[in-house]
This record gives sequence, structure tokens and C-alpha cells, in this order.
Amino acid sequence: MIAKTPKPPYYAVIFSSLMAVEDKTYKRTSDRMVELAKAQKGFLGIESARNDLGITVSYWQSLEDIQNWKNNSEHQLAQKNGKEIWYQDFKVRISKVVHDYDFFK
Amino acid sequence: MIAKTPKPPYYAVIFSSLMAVEDKTYKRTSDRMVELAKAQKGFLGIESARNDLGITVSYWQSLEDIQNWKNNSEHQLAQKNGKEIWYQDFKVRISKVVHDYDFFK
Repeated sequence: MIAKTPKPPYYAVIFSSLMAVEDKTYKRTSDRMVELAKAQKGFLGIESARNDLGITVSYWQSLEDIQNWKNNSEHQLAQKNGKEIWYQDFKVRISKVVHDYDFFK
Repeated sequence: MIAKTPKPPYYAVIFSSLMAVEDKTYKRTSDRMVELAKAQKGFLGIESARNDLGITVSYWQSLEDIQNWKNNSEHQLAQKNGKEIWYQDFKVRISKVVHDYDFFK
């Protein structure tokens, strides 16, 4: 679904990735990370899609919230496995949303 | 593919959408818009994925480049058809990429 984010400014983490191996542990970890992210302070929403390329965008209140999420210990382990097992390539872009509009305006 | 963007800062347009109708004209227009975007001043790259939700992120040198692309006449017509025919919902978020990292650092 399209995330219902508040009025800008807020922050977006754009995570683009290419899979190397997509096993059961990946799927379970991926679902768990979404669940865990949702429980973090400052979390505003998440959107995901994948064909060959996967794009996940998570939205946050502040850069500090993003840093805290990056440093979460369970997330750190997932990041390590992502790098060593699941992804052949990825890029993370931290951005400040300055303006938005939608279907209705 | 993962876009090869320069060192930040640069800008990202995050376009999230849900389809209403996906016809041949949509596919043709979508391909044409990518081709046209690539020819615009300030274009840096584009990434796309779709399941139920579609996410397209395009990267630009400046906010002015994004505004010019939005106002491009052929793109304006595509936006009109998008709203009237192809999409049931969408959201556009304009953001400034302040930091990035990848697999190799």
C-alpha cells in the first residue's frame, strides 16, 4: 500500500537491492525487519516492490530515528547476513522529503 | 539496475502508485517517459519495481530540473492520462538525498 505519511518535512530511506540468494530465512528476516521497523520510534511508513530490482522505501520523522534503526542489534545482524548471503548488490540513500502531492491534489 | 548516482547532495522523486488499468498504451507511455526523462537536463538515473504497488525513483541534479521535467508537455499529457485512466492512487515525494552508501562501503 501507499504509505500515509504526514506533511513534509520528513525523511525517506531508499533501499535498492539485487538478490544473490532468496531463501526461507531471507523471507522470514525480511518480514521480521518490517515488523521491527514499525515498532521503532519515529517510524512513519514503508513501501516495497520487487522484480529483478527490489526497492523498499521507509519513512521516518528524523535522521536520528534512521540512525537508531540502523544501529538496532537485530537489524545489524540482518544487515550482516544481507551483505554476506542474500544480496549481490544494494544501495541505501538517506533523503529529506521536502514536498509531496498525490492523486487528490 | 541500481542507478549509478554521483556523490550527494542530489534529488530523488519517489513515485508510488497503484494501477487501475494496465493497457498497451500504459506500457508504451511508461517506456517513452523513461526514455524522455533520460534526455532531460539534470537527469541522474532511474529505478523501478512493481508488484501490487509500483515504486519508481528518479534522481536529479536540482529541484529546478525536477520542476522542468514535471512541466514537460509530453510528460504533462502522460500525467493527465495517468490520473484519468491508469492509476487508482499515487503519491509523489520530492526529496533531497543527503547521504548514501552501498555494498562496498
